[in-house]
Amino acid sequence: MEELKNYYKRVAKYYSAASLLYWDMQTYMPKDAGPYRAEVLSEIGTYAFKAMIDDALGTLLETAQPQNEIEEKIVSVGKKEYYKYKKVPPELFQEIMMTSTMLEQKWEIAKPKGDFEEVRPLLEKLVELCRKYAEILGYEEEPYNALLDLYEPGMKARDVEQIFNKVKTFILEVLKKIENLPKTEDPFDREISAEKQKEFSIWLLHYLKYDFKKGRLDVSAHPFTNPIGLNDVRITTRYIVNDMRNSIYSTIHEFGHALYALSIPAEFYGLPIGSSASYGFDESQSRFWENIVGRSLVFWKGIYQKFVEIVPEMKEYTVEELWRAVNRVQRSYIRTEADEVTYNLHIIIRFEIERALINGGLSVKDIPDKWAELFKKYIGLEVPNNTLGCMQDPHWYGGNFGYFPTYALGNLYAAQIFEKLKEEIDFEDVVSKGEFDVIKDFLREKIHSKGKMYEPAELIKMVTGKPLSYEPFVRYVKEKYSKVYGIEI
Amino acid sequence: MEELKNYYKRVAKYYSAASLLYWDMQTYMPKDAGPYRAEVLSEIGTYAFKAMIDDALGTLLETAQPQNEIEEKIVSVGKKEYYKYKKVPPELFQEIMMTSTMLEQKWEIAKPKGDFEEVRPLLEKLVELCRKYAEILGYEEEPYNALLDLYEPGMKARDVEQIFNKVKTFILEVLKKIENLPKTEDPFDREISAEKQKEFSIWLLHYLKYDFKKGRLDVSAHPFTNPIGLNDVRITTRYIVNDMRNSIYSTIHEFGHALYALSIPAEFYGLPIGSSASYGFDESQSRFWENIVGRSLVFWKGIYQKFVEIVPEMKEYTVEELWRAVNRVQRSYIRTEADEVTYNLHIIIRFEIERALINGGLSVKDIPDKWAELFKKYIGLEVPNNTLGCMQDPHWYGGNFGYFPTYALGNLYAAQIFEKLKEEIDFEDVVSKGEFDVIKDFLREKIHSKGKMYEPAELIKMVTGKPLSYEPFVRYVKEKYSKVYGIEI
Repeated sequence: MEELKNYYKRVAKYYSAASLLYWDMQTYMPKDAGPYRAEVLSEIGTYAFKAMIDDALGTLLETAQPQNEIEEKIVSVGKKEYYKYKKVPPELFQEIMMTSTMLEQKWEIAKPKGDFEEVRPLLEKLVELCRKYAEILGYEEEPYNALLDLYEPGMKARDVEQIFNKVKTFILEVLKKIENLPKTEDPFDREISAEKQKEFSIWLLHYLKYDFKKGRLDVSAHPFTNPIGLNDVRITTRYIVNDMRNSIYSTIHEFGHALYALSIPAEFYGLPIGSSASYGFDESQSRFWENIVGRSLVFWKGIYQKFVEIVPEMKEYTVEELWRAVNRVQRSYIRTEADEVTYNLHIIIRFEIERALINGGLSVKDIPDKWAELFKKYIGLEVPNNTLGCMQDPHWYGGNFGYFPTYALGNLYAAQIFEKLKEEIDFEDVVSKGEFDVIKDFLREKIHSKGKMYEPAELIKMVTGKPLSYEPFVRYVKEKYSKVYGIEI
Repeated sequence: MEELKNYYKRVAKYYSAASLLYWDMQTYMPKDAGPYRAEVLSEIGTYAFKAMIDDALGTLLETAQPQNEIEEKIVSVGKKEYYKYKKVPPELFQEIMMTSTMLEQKWEIAKPKGDFEEVRPLLEKLVELCRKYAEILGYEEEPYNALLDLYEPGMKARDVEQIFNKVKTFILEVLKKIENLPKTEDPFDREISAEKQKEFSIWLLHYLKYDFKKGRLDVSAHPFTNPIGLNDVRITTRYIVNDMRNSIYSTIHEFGHALYALSIPAEFYGLPIGSSASYGFDESQSRFWENIVGRSLVFWKGIYQKFVEIVPEMKEYTVEELWRAVNRVQRSYIRTEADEVTYNLHIIIRFEIERALINGGLSVKDIPDKWAELFKKYIGLEVPNNTLGCMQDPHWYGGNFGYFPTYALGNLYAAQIFEKLKEEIDFEDVVSKGEFDVIKDFLREKIHSKGKMYEPAELIKMVTGKPLSYEPFVRYVKEKYSKVYGIEI
């Protein structure tokens, strides 16, 4: 058992190096260093991948003698991953890595022009490779499930579909109700310097008690959280001068991810159970802090004074006006800037398209039309170009099919966890006092301390006593947005 | 031959990752991440070391069929290193790495207190390990030569001693001549904010045409240059508010190192010939830019206007006064802050002590007394404590015995290269016009483009037509400091 643990911990050091190489690439790396950096990342990534499918690991897993539940989980989760990836020829893994790296670079150039034709041939190749990958991994019911399982272990597309259909119906009803309300002025529709935004972001992280001895805040084009090593989980944000909401909520969102990673027991580090339960669960934590905490009125009451101190031009607004402004619901093109109600519609569109792509019901060339059709149907907007449409997100061009649903699942998990949390904790009271440790202890005990010992379906039941449901999200939205808009929703 | 090159280039990627891990540790790493970072660095470093002594590499080296001089050098330099390190048991390598890592951490805590007893036991162990290392590596004449050869290939301690003795005699004469001159006010004895210093450092790098697409400037406790990968050579500096000279000359010094690394042909990258000729040669380039260019009157004429624009409180001084202020010679305790004349005395003290330690003529416990004795004898000062004495530098506590002489050799190489350069280039003219490309082309053609193809003794002869000599340094000092002090030196 010790030998097995040491094997994993040794390989984890290569993943740690790769994480730093990636973080640096997104933050401080000089421009011309890109091509060589890609080679270094690919070398170290492939080395680590090969170590994870090496026969030596198989032998260690088969002969290990676990002495307790934690060790049993190390072996069972380890075996599941080992035999899953063992089936994949390293050549296919490497071809997917290379194709997606090339395609992502092409996408970055083609995206501002919205030129889908420029990315189409490579995307066709990548979809074919991912379909092959799904076949090799194996699945029940439909090929898409093989990929979904990489991000949300145990989840099936059919279950996702059922939940999403109900969420969709509900959101469309909400939109109808609030759509004809009179529009108010937007306090955030003004320029606020990056310096002020940075000052406030750092203050926010101190307020939330993010541990800067174990992390950092930097700037990147797309905000992300990167667990670089033990006691080293860094986040990034971005400062968009004409909408400060972006940096505030990116910062809190990434704080939620970082808190999860930093709260997984140190003795799990590097082992198969040493990460979050799933991408959806990880997202539940970031969305919990971003939306449920960070967009609550009690939270704004706690930060208001500091906010107007750093951004005095906002003094003319009351705390309620600012709270409404960070909760305005509207149909919009860009997923990452969408409000928490319509956000899920953006995900549902992507889910339907990528599921059809992988299962074979849709060709790559038809993506832009399908996108326009679904966008019109669900969000009600005409898509003016691919930049605001099917080329806005990097996921497909990076080969991450099966990833998108986890964003919406995260919102649902978060709402369900929140209902449970309110049973045990006076949420309004602790948030208004800034006593975040009470909430952190709850999350650590119920979720973070478990690492990846349980599949998300098991874990949500352990935490809340019930299987995943869309209903808590519905109740959360109804209660909150009835207050935000002052009408019955 | 191709297979051999690919082998080296593959291993170089691990060294590249290790470089980034090190750079990050010195610049942006969160505090608590230290212990785990040490583990990651050790894992990746040991992996790369093992690859460099693997039998597979030996076979490739023995069967390679070089087709030209460059390929011949790849094989010959590669063989030399392979058979040298092959003799070292990886356990000894790892024990030295672990002991020096632990000792360096102890030293960092003990240094401010000057508590030599706290580091003595581990330093005794490390000196023993390094003596063992020298025995295994093998040597002519004396064990110290084995270690010196790691930094200055082919150089012998006896030759260093002969040169240093002459340098020492000369410097002591210079000191006598200028010592009784009246002291003038020091323009740099004032507070200048880190922000202004940073602005000027960055301007300086642009002025010298440092390529920010291939590098960065950051802050670290001890300035350093780190070749992280192809097209990625980063430098650091530090901002000491009550002496701006420090940041100016650290920045220019590291620029010199970076220029060397960036000018080695890209096709050499990762191969045995893909680095500087030696530590001494590397230092010759940094010292050339720092002292010969950066401390020249013509250079100051070129930067004066920008300098007083960024630091307007300095307007009251003329360019000559500032030039004299960056060239004042004085006896002082700290090597890294010493002027270019007395600097070599600091090195000679360390050389004499470490040579005796490794050859067996001095015990670790006697270092502080020996230090005080030599410091009094050469520099003429009573050493008040170990913080200003034998504990000021990290080298010994990091196990880098044999490294110190390269600093002084760098000064001598630089002066000798400068004499040659002046034969071909109107130095005063190009520097006053800021036409640094003329100088860069000279250095690239004669030195940088050769990488590590030649040993330093060969290279200095190729560049200047003569073997290394202390005389150009003597001529340089006489000419320059006669002007600085307005007396015959």
